[in-house]
This record gives sequence, C-alpha cells and structure tokens, in this order.
Amino acid sequence: MSARYDFTSTRLFVEADLAAGASVDLGDAQANYLRNVLRFAPGDGLLLFNGRDGEWRARTAEVAKKRVTVVVEEMTRPQTPPTGVDYLFAPLKHARLDYMVQKAVEMGAGRLRPVLTRRTQAARVNLDRMRANVVEAAEQCGVISAPEVLEPEPLEKALGAWPTEVPLAFCDEAADVADPMAALRGRVSGAIGLLIGPEGGFDPAERAALLRLPSVVRLSLGPRILRADTAAVAALALVQAARDGDASF
Amino acid sequence: MSARYDFTSTRLFVEADLAAGASVDLGDAQANYLRNVLRFAPGDGLLLFNGRDGEWRARTAEVAKKRVTVVVEEMTRPQTPPTGVDYLFAPLKHARLDYMVQKAVEMGAGRLRPVLTRRTQAARVNLDRMRANVVEAAEQCGVISAPEVLEPEPLEKALGAWPTEVPLAFCDEAADVADPMAALRGRVSGAIGLLIGPEGGFDPAERAALLRLPSVVRLSLGPRILRADTAAVAALALVQAARDGDASF
Repeated sequence: MSARYDFTSTRLFVEADLAAGASVDLGDAQANYLRNVLRFAPGDGLLLFNGRDGEWRARTAEVAKKRVTVVVEEMTRPQTPPTGVDYLFAPLKHARLDYMVQKAVEMGAGRLRPVLTRRTQAARVNLDRMRANVVEAAEQCGVISAPEVLEPEPLEKALGAWPTEVPLAFCDEAADVADPMAALRGRVSGAIGLLIGPEGGFDPAERAALLRLPSVVRLSLGPRILRADTAAVAALALVQAARDGDASF
Repeated sequence: MSARYDFTSTRLFVEADLAAGASVDLGDAQANYLRNVLRFAPGDGLLLFNGRDGEWRARTAEVAKKRVTVVVEEMTRPQTPPTGVDYLFAPLKHARLDYMVQKAVEMGAGRLRPVLTRRTQAARVNLDRMRANVVEAAEQCGVISAPEVLEPEPLEKALGAWPTEVPLAFCDEAADVADPMAALRGRVSGAIGLLIGPEGGFDPAERAALLRLPSVVRLSLGPRILRADTAAVAALALVQAARDGDASF
C-alpha cells in the first residue's frame, strides 16, 4: 500500500505538545483506530491538534501491535483562541445529549456548560462521555481547539454569577422582538452566552431570574416548537452570523 | 380516568376534511396509538390538522378495539399557506435522512425536494418513509401544514428549470461574502430555495451550473466543516431570520 498524502482525511486530537520533529505516541484507542480501522502503514499522513499548539501535519513512523508513533512535520494552521461563545444547556438524555454536544462543537461553541434546571431531563451527567463527544466532533469538523466542558452547576448559580457586561441569549417563545438578528447585532462581538433550556421549558422562577439579567437577549426562533437540539443549532447559527456581520462592519 | 383537557399534548395529521361537528374515523396506526400508547378514553381531547382546513380541537367519541372516532369541535388556528421555502437536498442514508427531514420541517421548510447529485449517498429514495417523517415532525412541532415531498429529480434538471426571479441559496465554503445575513437580506420575503448538497460536496460541473444561476445566493456558514443535517438547520435558521428581519421593516 502506498503512503497516504491526503493529510486532511484523518485528524486526531492529542494531549502531547506539538512542534516540528516531535515524536508522539498515540493512546491505545487512537492506535487501534489507525491500525485496525484505517489500516495505516508507516509513512501515512494525518493531522494532529491539541488545542494549544495549532494544527500539524504528521506521519506515522512506527505501527506496531500495541503502539503507533507519529512524527510531527509542519504546522498547517496556527492556534486561535476559543470563540468566546459559552454554550449553556440543560442536559437531555443519552443519545440526544451526544448529538446536542456534537452539534454545539460543529457550530463553534467555545465552552460547554451543562446547567441543571428544575425541569432538566437527565438526573446524572456523564462528563467523560460528553468530553469524548466533544473531541470526536472537534476532530471531524476541523475546529482547532476542543471546547472545554465545565462541571455541571445549577442554572440559578450560573445566573447569579453572570458578568454584567456579557450578553446572555436565550430562546424565548414569548419574545416580543420578531427579528432575532436585530436583537443580537452589535452585542455579540466579544464574549457571549447562549442558554438552551430543557424541553419542558424554564420554571417561572428561572425565567424571572433570566429576565432580571441586565444583559439578557431574548431570541425568537419563530412560531414552531423546536426540539432542544434543533434550537441549539439554530440559535448558534444566528449568533455566529451576527458575529460575522459585526466583524464585517 | 378523567377526560384530558390538555388538547395541545396530542396533535394528529389526518386526511379527512375538518369542520365543526364533523366525525373522523382515525386510521389503524393512529387509532392504535391513541388507544394503546396514550390510553385514550372517550371524551379525551386532541388537536387535528390536515393542511387545508386549519387546526381544530376534537374529542374522542368512540374508542373501540379496531376503531377510534373523534368529533371535531372548534377551530384553534386558521389555515395559513406553506412558507414558500423550498428545501432541496441530496438524500443521505437511512437514519440521518430521517433526521434531516424532521429538522427541515421543524425549521419551517414549505416543500421538500430531494435532488440527486453526482455524489449523492443514497441510491434509492424511500418517499413513503420521508412523508411519514414529515407528518410526524409536523404533528410534533406545531406547523399547520405538512410540507409536500416532491419526487426526486436530478439536480441539474432542477437547476435548468429554476425560475429566474426566485433566489436559490446554497452553502458555499468558498463564498467571498463573510456575512451570510447580508447576502440574504432583502431577497427572501417571497419564494426562496435552499439547497443542501451531499457531504462529498458538489461536482465541479454542478457547482458551475449553480453559480451560473442569476438568482444564486452563496451562504458562508463559517470555517467549520458541517455535517449536512447541521448545515440544513443552520441555513434554514438564517433564511427564517432574514425573512423575519425583512418582514419587520
């Protein structure tokens, strides 16, 4: 089998430092994936990133039974900071939570912050599983850092500690602003939070606490009832578009 | 068990005409769902819509072994026309196609038009399954008409017959317009098409044909590689937001 030169088709997140000439031993799962799933041979190319040192081309040096070593060659993209979009969400159950986490990464969330609401569906939050989903999505969608996943906290605690100057957008069916972009424009170039509530909606006390925030942005996503994962993608699309719009002025 | 007065929790699409006092025999699948899953009793309430006569409150009259009859009481919402958003998409495989169809309905697509591209993943398109997904999504997300699903056609045929005056937006990683809302604004108040290509991207000839359309709108969704179903939700969110924005001027 000849060496693969399509570096972009395989992209892995690693913990190791990345620099030209560095040798990186891949962990068991990644070694297994390259050797047994992708059938990598010595000399095959791939991309590596670690969220700190940018993205690098690398090439497999050794493909042994329990161990794959790759040598880092050249930087393909410099590191950029995370997007500044904090994505706060009430965890859903199982498969739909996996999906929601992957979509948030695809749509450019900078940090993932699970918040527990009074109507949150998932009683326990599996952070390891969430982090694994983040890494997988980051590898596939080409972002240069794997968003951090914070420890779950009660929504009311998160709201109580919310910085006055940072906008917090949430999807509000009762929003009186019909034009969501008008609500966002000019306010989203720096840090911003986007909160996706549970499918049962916010409790009245939670809603009141939200509306008391001076920086709250109420987003209307139209007359339809959206699932939480759909609302997440739609709202992140609007936030990103508003950021692009602000940046282009 | 006392009668249910929460009409909004159960919402069914039916073929029958709807008017005050009309009696509707539900089909086997819906009858089974009401009787055996929801455990409906005579007198329980639900909502019905058929895409022609608006949305109506109804109440079960007879719940028999093989047959559930409901009596239509009062209109809750008048019929509105479909949104005018044609959603053209290269079918994905199986479960992800189900998902993509459901999301398009949730996000307000008016018609679904499968288009076959040179890199389309699914060889055969199961229209019945697509229509079932449309109906289920329409019931759940509260839209008042179940979007029509057109017969699949080759992309190049659809482009060849595309009306000059109707904008056709597609997601173009190479778009030079950094602000997607600027590209859409002022152009989306009437009929509009949104085209989501296959995950392998458009063939160069297809891309050229697209760019030759005088009404083409190139949408940039940012630097990340999006899955087709994510791109669909994000692009529909932008189209809807642009329509809301145009409507508010």
